[in-house]
Amino acid sequence: MTGHWVTDQFEIEKGRAITLKTAKTLLSKKTKFQQLDMYETTAFGRLFVLDGVFMTAEKDEHCYHEMIVHVPMMVHPHPKKVLVIGGGDGGTVREVLKHEAVEEVHLCEIDREVIEACKEFLPSISCKLDDPKVTILFEDGAAFVKKNKNTYDIIIVDSSDPIGPAKILFEKPFYQDVHDALKDDGIAVAQCESFFFHGDLIKDVLATNKSLYPIVEYYYTLVPTYPSGMIGFSFCSKKYKPKDIFNKPAPKDLKYYTPEVHHASFCLPMFTREFVL
Amino acid sequence: MTGHWVTDQFEIEKGRAITLKTAKTLLSKKTKFQQLDMYETTAFGRLFVLDGVFMTAEKDEHCYHEMIVHVPMMVHPHPKKVLVIGGGDGGTVREVLKHEAVEEVHLCEIDREVIEACKEFLPSISCKLDDPKVTILFEDGAAFVKKNKNTYDIIIVDSSDPIGPAKILFEKPFYQDVHDALKDDGIAVAQCESFFFHGDLIKDVLATNKSLYPIVEYYYTLVPTYPSGMIGFSFCSKKYKPKDIFNKPAPKDLKYYTPEVHHASFCLPMFTREFVL
Repeated sequence: MTGHWVTDQFEIEKGRAITLKTAKTLLSKKTKFQQLDMYETTAFGRLFVLDGVFMTAEKDEHCYHEMIVHVPMMVHPHPKKVLVIGGGDGGTVREVLKHEAVEEVHLCEIDREVIEACKEFLPSISCKLDDPKVTILFEDGAAFVKKNKNTYDIIIVDSSDPIGPAKILFEKPFYQDVHDALKDDGIAVAQCESFFFHGDLIKDVLATNKSLYPIVEYYYTLVPTYPSGMIGFSFCSKKYKPKDIFNKPAPKDLKYYTPEVHHASFCLPMFTREFVL
Repeated sequence: MTGHWVTDQFEIEKGRAITLKTAKTLLSKKTKFQQLDMYETTAFGRLFVLDGVFMTAEKDEHCYHEMIVHVPMMVHPHPKKVLVIGGGDGGTVREVLKHEAVEEVHLCEIDREVIEACKEFLPSISCKLDDPKVTILFEDGAAFVKKNKNTYDIIIVDSSDPIGPAKILFEKPFYQDVHDALKDDGIAVAQCESFFFHGDLIKDVLATNKSLYPIVEYYYTLVPTYPSGMIGFSFCSKKYKPKDIFNKPAPKDLKYYTPEVHHASFCLPMFTREFVL
């Protein structure tokens, strides 16, 4: 293994990691909230890293961003007002805006320097952050969501892992506030880790949300640069069932999402029944 | 990253790899055909490595072995006679024997020392290699399959990657011989790499097989210790369609396969249409 390699730190203490060869370090700085690094990798294009954990890479970011967005957006008949918590790289906002029904997107990102860095170094991901439908709020997502009741059609929690500033986004008071910020037919989707590695966390998240919503399911997508090569999402809905895709065309120019993939993403391996059902 | 780590060499020249912490090296030897290593890893149990490439690990081997076996076995109404090419760890044979219809399993593994090492160090995987229904043939799979016409209900090519001794198993003469060794309603399934990394290979394999079989599809499973976290299979069938699961109960005590996962495993991300359709 010649040259410089960057290794994801999230799982390293558990003895497993993904490592990528880097051609160049583009940025390395300590923000008010976290360590922020940007690399040019040889295999996955540019890589954005927070506190040593791989956030997103140019070559596989669509697998994540399309699935965190289009699954709830294709189920909801008319998603006009959308809140994204976290997601400072802009990939989630970019996908949300592919839906014609959308009138307003609020992006609540605690770390202004994340947005600045992604605008500079990840233009293909951050490209829609200046869209007139988008309002960026540099606030703590947990505090922001408390102030807005019965407001959003869709809330997407595009968070980092439950360590550091995102820890609060995996706790019950936050889930209650998200629920209350949704309209009566709203849907909340949140990043919810790997079923290979984080069964206990997934079980807790789903159980907590089942006390709030009539419909709670877990689905997943494949992301080669994430630990175990996949990542899942909690799908929490007040009214619409996750497999009832609304009768409208999917956005064009997608790389990952299809209606068939939408359905398949809820079909989970047998071993997950220990913590998902 | 303290301690000893083992890094998969298959993808390393392309600047991406999975790395696992090892507690102990159990075996490291040069066989007649390849370098063979066994490690105790801290995260995935025992790990079997050939020529530096991760073959199988105790903690996620069921994801691979169940899917390479039960997908064709559940589609075929009466799979009595099964040939496994490669697969010296025994995991595929173990899963095949879970089907009551099976009368005879031929395992054709070129490297006797692989089977010996797996019997010694991977007992939970190799546990059925001494079953009376199993005959182990220490032969070149490509040569063996030539000698048997119209013989097998199912052929499973559980090979390593198309480098080293398995290269011949990704070439047209071999596919033709596999086709001819199947009965008139036979099904052949072969390990067929990752759609994230090996689109060109997949395209070639499927195109070649489409000239031989009326039904050729690609499906996949999740395997955290494989490059990109997933691996796919070609499904080549003379008669039965891959989604027509025969009306019989699935084996009990499975960890990965379910009929729903069977169907979902054929639903591929949009970007694969470039090389799969």
